[in-house]
Amino acid sequence: MTRRAFVHRISAAAPDDVSGIEAAIADGHIDPKGVIAVLAKTEGNGLVNDFARGHATLALSLMFRRHLPADEAARICLVMSGGTEGGMAPHWVVFERRAADDADGKGPALAIGRAHTPPLPFEHLGRLAEVDQVTEGVTVAMRDAGISDPDDVHFVQVKCPLLIAQRVADADRRGAVVATRDTLKSMGLSRAASALGAAVALGETAREKIAESDIGANWSLWSRRASASSGIELLNHEIVVMGMSPAWSGPLAIDHAVMADAIDIEPVRAALGRLGLAASGQLTDTQRRRLVALLGKAEASHDGLLRGRRHTMLDDSDIASTRHARAFVCGALAGLVGHAEIYVSGGAEHQGPDGGGPVALIVDRA
Amino acid sequence: MTRRAFVHRISAAAPDDVSGIEAAIADGHIDPKGVIAVLAKTEGNGLVNDFARGHATLALSLMFRRHLPADEAARICLVMSGGTEGGMAPHWVVFERRAADDADGKGPALAIGRAHTPPLPFEHLGRLAEVDQVTEGVTVAMRDAGISDPDDVHFVQVKCPLLIAQRVADADRRGAVVATRDTLKSMGLSRAASALGAAVALGETAREKIAESDIGANWSLWSRRASASSGIELLNHEIVVMGMSPAWSGPLAIDHAVMADAIDIEPVRAALGRLGLAASGQLTDTQRRRLVALLGKAEASHDGLLRGRRHTMLDDSDIASTRHARAFVCGALAGLVGHAEIYVSGGAEHQGPDGGGPVALIVDRA
Amino acid sequence: MTRRAFVHRISAAAPDDVSGIEAAIADGHIDPKGVIAVLAKTEGNGLVNDFARGHATLALSLMFRRHLPADEAARICLVMSGGTEGGMAPHWVVFERRAADDADGKGPALAIGRAHTPPLPFEHLGRLAEVDQVTEGVTVAMRDAGISDPDDVHFVQVKCPLLIAQRVADADRRGAVVATRDTLKSMGLSRAASALGAAVALGETAREKIAESDIGANWSLWSRRASASSGIELLNHEIVVMGMSPAWSGPLAIDHAVMADAIDIEPVRAALGRLGLAASGQLTDTQRRRLVALLGKAEASHDGLLRGRRHTMLDDSDIASTRHARAFVCGALAGLVGHAEIYVSGGAEHQGPDGGGPVALIVDRA
Amino acid sequence: MTRRAFVHRISAAAPDDVSGIEAAIADGHIDPKGVIAVLAKTEGNGLVNDFARGHATLALSLMFRRHLPADEAARICLVMSGGTEGGMAPHWVVFERRAADDADGKGPALAIGRAHTPPLPFEHLGRLAEVDQVTEGVTVAMRDAGISDPDDVHFVQVKCPLLIAQRVADADRRGAVVATRDTLKSMGLSRAASALGAAVALGETAREKIAESDIGANWSLWSRRASASSGIELLNHEIVVMGMSPAWSGPLAIDHAVMADAIDIEPVRAALGRLGLAASGQLTDTQRRRLVALLGKAEASHDGLLRGRRHTMLDDSDIASTRHARAFVCGALAGLVGHAEIYVSGGAEHQGPDGGGPVALIVDRA
Repeated sequence: MTRRAFVHRISAAAPDDVSGIEAAIADGHIDPKGVIAVLAKTEGNGLVNDFARGHATLALSLMFRRHLPADEAARICLVMSGGTEGGMAPHWVVFERRAADDADGKGPALAIGRAHTPPLPFEHLGRLAEVDQVTEGVTVAMRDAGISDPDDVHFVQVKCPLLIAQRVADADRRGAVVATRDTLKSMGLSRAASALGAAVALGETAREKIAESDIGANWSLWSRRASASSGIELLNHEIVVMGMSPAWSGPLAIDHAVMADAIDIEPVRAALGRLGLAASGQLTDTQRRRLVALLGKAEASHDGLLRGRRHTMLDDSDIASTRHARAFVCGALAGLVGHAEIYVSGGAEHQGPDGGGPVALIVDRA
Repeated sequence: MTRRAFVHRISAAAPDDVSGIEAAIADGHIDPKGVIAVLAKTEGNGLVNDFARGHATLALSLMFRRHLPADEAARICLVMSGGTEGGMAPHWVVFERRAADDADGKGPALAIGRAHTPPLPFEHLGRLAEVDQVTEGVTVAMRDAGISDPDDVHFVQVKCPLLIAQRVADADRRGAVVATRDTLKSMGLSRAASALGAAVALGETAREKIAESDIGANWSLWSRRASASSGIELLNHEIVVMGMSPAWSGPLAIDHAVMADAIDIEPVRAALGRLGLAASGQLTDTQRRRLVALLGKAEASHDGLLRGRRHTMLDDSDIASTRHARAFVCGALAGLVGHAEIYVSGGAEHQGPDGGGPVALIVDRA
Repeated sequence: MTRRAFVHRISAAAPDDVSGIEAAIADGHIDPKGVIAVLAKTEGNGLVNDFARGHATLALSLMFRRHLPADEAARICLVMSGGTEGGMAPHWVVFERRAADDADGKGPALAIGRAHTPPLPFEHLGRLAEVDQVTEGVTVAMRDAGISDPDDVHFVQVKCPLLIAQRVADADRRGAVVATRDTLKSMGLSRAASALGAAVALGETAREKIAESDIGANWSLWSRRASASSGIELLNHEIVVMGMSPAWSGPLAIDHAVMADAIDIEPVRAALGRLGLAASGQLTDTQRRRLVALLGKAEASHDGLLRGRRHTMLDDSDIASTRHARAFVCGALAGLVGHAEIYVSGGAEHQGPDGGGPVALIVDRA
Repeated sequence: MTRRAFVHRISAAAPDDVSGIEAAIADGHIDPKGVIAVLAKTEGNGLVNDFARGHATLALSLMFRRHLPADEAARICLVMSGGTEGGMAPHWVVFERRAADDADGKGPALAIGRAHTPPLPFEHLGRLAEVDQVTEGVTVAMRDAGISDPDDVHFVQVKCPLLIAQRVADADRRGAVVATRDTLKSMGLSRAASALGAAVALGETAREKIAESDIGANWSLWSRRASASSGIELLNHEIVVMGMSPAWSGPLAIDHAVMADAIDIEPVRAALGRLGLAASGQLTDTQRRRLVALLGKAEASHDGLLRGRRHTMLDDSDIASTRHARAFVCGALAGLVGHAEIYVSGGAEHQGPDGGGPVALIVDRA
């Protein structure tokens, strides 16, 4: 008796277009009882005032409540990553798990788990308290996935909160001091602390090596597998862990790569090869169909350079650097895999090296 | 006795940073007397109110006037393409030509020519009158390059004007009717008419097949080699033609490819192969150094789809679709060639198929 | 036996923050049974990809469904006007009506009515068919308000649809030709046709005087009382009519003014005076409390001039002119009334003279 | 023998349109020899990557060099304030002074002076070293204006530098630590330090009361007369002081007001009255013609509130709060004075109370 993971990638025609998921439930492709998480790329600006994420979250919640008891629906992790710049296609990635008998084939196979942390006091955002809260959450999610060895984890997705004027004011009223009053900057600090929290849980960084001043500043500290996305629509953290486990079966497998910079696609090509999708140029149609999901991170390098030449993402006051980076990195990865319905999330603080980021690939081996 | 083309790609630290060109003149790498054109990617928004292009144009003019008689300096085509979204590096591409003796090696080699059209009356913008003016200009530039067979032309760069409120008002005062009062839309119409004008000159489209209503509307008409960029900083057209000619010598060669959509990089890979830079993955450092310049176009497909999946570039009211497209296509091409100091211009109306665009590659064969 | 209108202005902490309305229902200030419309300023970009409007609409619908039968809840007009640029405060304006006995005081008093039109085929948007549909809708809403004489109408708010890439594609598939393929421009055309439709219903413009080519082009045609706002979240028109009627009683009264340009506040000051709020400078706190609601329109003049001096709203490709205009006109009006929790909607095509717009004021005479 | 100040307000059709100034020089209205400063509102985004300011600066420099020896031209303070949001009209305000005999009428009258500081090391930006440098500069400018009593100063305009990626990198290379790596934030810190520097020079704040941590944070410290504007186009500070002095003659007078918040226009109305332009509503055409220049500041209040109601300027990641504030405050002031060719600069850190700002009015008493 094993468990089996199912990953359903479904296009969205709008932030609240859950019709594709409902159709998959109706025709039996998705059993809502087994859904533990939905990751999505929604088409807002991906920044502070991005209400498309909240709109999508509400639409998903209403939909699941039509199929599940409220408490079960509430346990599903909803990780909305805002920003589909460039040609990125808005889409849902639904993670489901079922009990399976060995006929489904021996593992190891894709294993998935999730966790919710308690709400984060606003003054803890971007500080060691957030690091620790996320470390604990990742540990819980690993346990939920039945993964004991951190090396078996290939991707950790954390959805984390951010600050807005009213939340800063709330902390002020309580005499608490927030890490920043700049709402846009709070998104980066929250991602930074979350990524370091995951790094600790994965044994990539020793907790005692991290000082509060390192958060969002010391880029020598980074995780090879953490991905964090901040949003106005939640006050706690929602965490999804993906890895390989012999206790899971089925055709799905996951591997990861680390891009050293925004156009470092060869490590991703190598990971595709390890998963059975070797290609010299762009993936063929057949290979493309076997690539179930691509999850990655994008950011502007902090020295303002890409391979020794200047980029202008950090000096552009009209478009946030995360928007530039998502469009650009999505282009590089789409050029490799041959389509743009991929999950590229912006702001890779401590997620991969400065200017680069981790990429996870889920492939159907059948 | 032949002619020889030199192409100098020089990084820019700001829109008015011509120090790299001045240094090249000082050390003799560039002889200002032979410079016929400067193409550049400048870091503004690339849209109507992009004054970085005008700032760069003024800085270049002042610089050349320090080295040349005013009338000679004025003859140099200055083609500023605004918008370095994503990781695109702001840079200058200086086109120079010199007389050469055969010792330099037999042709065929890169041949370059240029032309300036008269000012375009505002009411002609985006209309057949602009098409014809550009056709005439391209013919003049081909003659200047010593290219008689249109098939020997690999790239035509046209810098064209746009409308702003005052120009529309000027036409109104004269009782003339402009093609559009939407200043942003005027950029696309000007690019569209310019591209069709080049297509006619190159024998890709028959003039009589083009109705005024086709301009910026009938995407079945397109050039494989035209690239147009509109700007507030000029009132006429500046045209640069690039091709191969036996009357030219030297190590430089040019070829072109047509991308069918925003991530169709395999035709570009094939063109690199024809030029001696075959690579299965990303170009190696050695190959990269031999790639002197990459010139391409980017746009959002008008049906809102990329390979059957939705993109949101046309529905984004915060960021113009040309900005999204430049960042995205630059990412795809940079992933192929391994750096982002490439010239990707936005808005490919009638330049390549809908959603795609032409790409030119200049390589040092030595 | 008369009817009595109640207008509740309630602050919103977020697009989906309906807590203030729920509290008013809980404490009996609002009887959901009598609510016919909610107008709101929501904090998105007010443009094509503004999902805050849809998010607010969904939150309001869910809230009303908790208090009313689904069909009654569905009859409430939800007019979300996106864009709270400058200091404009996001807020709800809830319109409620109840039966009243004459003890409430004789009229005339504020009278309100509403109507919903059928869905508008995408190819009719911005065309005479939309004009006629809105004319019919306004007539229905006047009847609902018990107003027979158009001169008794002081404000007509129309929420109208817009085009997005998929809707254009849908029309294409049916071989239908849309008025524009530019999604942002479709917002203006829809507002333009809606305003002319109201102008016809109010007897301000003769239907036979309107040619299809006048829509969004001939600014000599305009209404003194129409306000139109377009949104992605609906496919039909929702219409609210406000006026004075002897068949209504209570302390509320409405009057209107027409601003000749973006800073023409003196006519608004005069209207305030007619309503009993005369002030030489800014309204006093006491007067301010009696101003229940201010509803107005803002736009950039099409000649690019304000009182003979240039404005740059039409040449700014980073910020849409409607966003500039809302912030600017809201500043002028807030300087007059002393707060910025006012409803300033962008895009005043045929709503007031070019560059100006109508303003309605609802005052508590008690 | 006294001195006499002339202030010429001239419209600009583009960032580099100096034709109006040249015409005034040609017809003798302006004597370039006496020009000490040009303040201007230019039409860029007013943020980090605003090259319109540099373009205007270059155009002005070239123009003055055609009329003056290079060293004299270089001494003219060029204060380009980017951002003409809303209906604000791009324009130049040229400050000129001449020797005058008493026939011109006894003073006191408008007195003007200027100063240039040395370049500011990047790591000093936003720190006490910048405060002190500006204090020294303002003192020099007061001396240049012949004003000894700080109470006679009504406005101090400081143009200050900002950080960009390369400047941060330069500091890094030298092992110096910059106050912020966020380029947009550096604009605010530079304005904050400059304003405090002026406050010290004007005796409004005691130098020893200012801790480095107060800069850009402790809003209880503010000047009633300082206005600071940061730009990429300079590395030092350019300072212009305006006041009243018995040693100056002529019809021009200056006074100032402090707006307590973004719509607090009554103190400005009172100042207009003190200058002979009393008006209950909007200024009349005749009064408007006597208002030579209006100079003011705008910012979003840091508590996210305007008169107790929420504004969204600080949570908008698409449009910087300074852009919102300029459009909004310009609307409030234009509603008062009746035109929008006024100088409203964004970012009022320590310039007026939090959310408000100082306003200076120059009037022709003749």
